[in-house]
Amino acid sequence: MTDDVRRESLFTIEATPVKFGAGAAHDAGWEMKRLGGKRLFVVIDPEVQRLKIADHVLDSLRGAGLELVLYSDVDTEPSIEALGRAVQAAREANPDSFVAIGGGSTIDTAKVANLLLTHGGEIMDYVNPPVGAGKKPPSPLKPLLAIPTTAGSGSEATTVAILDIPDLKIKTGISHRYMRPAQAIVDPELARSAPSAVIASAGLDVVCHAAESFLSRPYTTRERPATPDDRPPYQGSNPVADLWSAQALRYGGQYLRRAVQSGNDVEARGFMMLSATMAGVGFGSAGVHIPHSCAYPIAGLKHQYRDPGYPGDKVFVPHGFSVIVTSPASFRFTFDADPAKHLRAAELLTGETYAPDDREALPNALLKLMRDVGAPSGVAALGYDESDIPALIDGALKQQRLLAVAPKMPTRDDLDRIFRESMHNW
Amino acid sequence: MTDDVRRESLFTIEATPVKFGAGAAHDAGWEMKRLGGKRLFVVIDPEVQRLKIADHVLDSLRGAGLELVLYSDVDTEPSIEALGRAVQAAREANPDSFVAIGGGSTIDTAKVANLLLTHGGEIMDYVNPPVGAGKKPPSPLKPLLAIPTTAGSGSEATTVAILDIPDLKIKTGISHRYMRPAQAIVDPELARSAPSAVIASAGLDVVCHAAESFLSRPYTTRERPATPDDRPPYQGSNPVADLWSAQALRYGGQYLRRAVQSGNDVEARGFMMLSATMAGVGFGSAGVHIPHSCAYPIAGLKHQYRDPGYPGDKVFVPHGFSVIVTSPASFRFTFDADPAKHLRAAELLTGETYAPDDREALPNALLKLMRDVGAPSGVAALGYDESDIPALIDGALKQQRLLAVAPKMPTRDDLDRIFRESMHNW
Repeated sequence: MTDDVRRESLFTIEATPVKFGAGAAHDAGWEMKRLGGKRLFVVIDPEVQRLKIADHVLDSLRGAGLELVLYSDVDTEPSIEALGRAVQAAREANPDSFVAIGGGSTIDTAKVANLLLTHGGEIMDYVNPPVGAGKKPPSPLKPLLAIPTTAGSGSEATTVAILDIPDLKIKTGISHRYMRPAQAIVDPELARSAPSAVIASAGLDVVCHAAESFLSRPYTTRERPATPDDRPPYQGSNPVADLWSAQALRYGGQYLRRAVQSGNDVEARGFMMLSATMAGVGFGSAGVHIPHSCAYPIAGLKHQYRDPGYPGDKVFVPHGFSVIVTSPASFRFTFDADPAKHLRAAELLTGETYAPDDREALPNALLKLMRDVGAPSGVAALGYDESDIPALIDGALKQQRLLAVAPKMPTRDDLDRIFRESMHNW
Repeated sequence: MTDDVRRESLFTIEATPVKFGAGAAHDAGWEMKRLGGKRLFVVIDPEVQRLKIADHVLDSLRGAGLELVLYSDVDTEPSIEALGRAVQAAREANPDSFVAIGGGSTIDTAKVANLLLTHGGEIMDYVNPPVGAGKKPPSPLKPLLAIPTTAGSGSEATTVAILDIPDLKIKTGISHRYMRPAQAIVDPELARSAPSAVIASAGLDVVCHAAESFLSRPYTTRERPATPDDRPPYQGSNPVADLWSAQALRYGGQYLRRAVQSGNDVEARGFMMLSATMAGVGFGSAGVHIPHSCAYPIAGLKHQYRDPGYPGDKVFVPHGFSVIVTSPASFRFTFDADPAKHLRAAELLTGETYAPDDREALPNALLKLMRDVGAPSGVAALGYDESDIPALIDGALKQQRLLAVAPKMPTRDDLDRIFRESMHNW
């Protein structure tokens, strides 16, 4: 960019309305009725359904006189085929509103079903370019009430749905402001039974969302778009997104270890759920960049990792683990772009203070947190070796939509170093 | 309250979507079109119209092919009669959407016109009880795009409209989540020409919103309502509202003096506008209490103050001044409820640190700010003497909706002391 480029002077921020607190999910019927729902397509995580964790939520919806069509064929980290099945089921049910009860996969499934039911067409029409056609929904979707049961994706607060396209060996997404749920209910009681590994991976995803957003390039360094329509959803860091991201980092540092240790620590799991929502608002405005760009090929390229702490027998890399493994090396690389803000991120996570030139402060804070919650030690533990690095770099470089807000744009050589350093973090 | 009362476990938070930055108002046409508007009722501050400050905003709306009906008969701190005229005009114009360009009075006028056009009836039907019937709008209103030109009310982010009822010698409001604008555009360029006194009063209102919300009683100390419908809009302090309030205090301390000094300090006026919006989100969830309760009778009981820095010749107490004059005494009274948080509020305002028992830290920080920006010295300067105190107390005690979230409930004697200490703050 040259100096005569006109710089961005604006940022936007939107947040899903949130009802937060222990017992909040009992209000599901009241909220859905307020949103005008009568016939609901309820996407529910199969484990949540099996363990009857959310039966009182379904009772609340039924008690409000609403008609329910339940759908629980939810894929963990859903493939486009799994989403297609949900779309088909939603079209058959023909609801006027959606409810999602589960983790990010469940909420994303409901988002995509809602999009396709409301506006027709094929999933690939809406997938972010260059993979899909990037079609924009012309008007708001039907109301979606999102009720997370983990503390991670922040999907209840974001405008994005993530999908896996195994044929293309790629993970990608659909992003648009209209994908944002109309209301979120965040109830710590619902996360009680989530396995520790799920809480760990989801919580590390939260920490990464917050750190990446907080350290994304300032919105004022982007080129100003020709029209408001061309303003990207990921705008770079700004004073409002920073508030959310900073608080999510604080909570992550304070509560994630406790939340992983025990499902009965409702306080810790509650703050991690709040943290997930806050980080979702933050990265929904500022954006994520290098660790998330690296995570897409880590999750998409090989399907051979099986996490021992996850329920079911699906072979996949849990999203939070795929993201966090390259974060120490990524933030070591971006340190120069804004040393003070990197140190601030480390301080928010640990409550400690650091010397102004301590480029290892944030990587070390992240490494300690990863070890404490039992994360895989690096990219190698997820099934890759050094011969895979060129393909991983190719995959990361495809995520230009994300890399556009990196504080420093990585070259192939930079990504090579990041993946190499991330093979074995300890 | 007794110990077997069931305590509140939930809080809710909603924020108007905001587009912020110098030049943002050029996007007015694009935003209104996105919201589906075709025929707009544009409520515009008469000074803003006369000084042609927002002609480019009107051009942007017209350039998007939208039809405009302009309405500028806006009362400063509007009376119910003035609002009635706006309602009548809106009914004649029969628009599908609303735009407000001005300060809190303008935005509140648009909110009330929108409410009555959408749902019919009389203004008093919707006014908060016990003054009015407190009727709830049954469904969302037409889209309102709010474009503030001052940095104060935060009305672009709130669910409330304030009105004066001279016959009853009372100021009161209409509150409901559906009153919240659909979108705000906050553009510092628009505040360039606001007179210093307007920026001072509006900015002190922001600081009071933030301090009152930050220090309101924790939401978990309220009694749990019988149904979600009974949950009050002002819920008490909570972790999300605190984020917004804390940042608004920081900005108020850092930027208000500069913003008052010069309209050309777009950076300072910009941060004060952002601060106003943030404080609006904060108090829209947590609530304001003692200083605002005292401000209603101060503004409503006598109409004889004429501020030399305000345009026009209307005799009225600018809202920010009516609020701030009792804030030092109010926070001296509430200190015991949570000393640490009072000190934290002072620290956020000044950047200094205080001894744990320094009950004057926050009052002193507020007094210094008031003097620096040229606020009236107290209730006496606004036209009252000690013989008015019983009537002022009566007026403050009518605001039970606000006092309900005070960190300590004031008795008549407490209010007597607060008004007495606030007669002459210096």
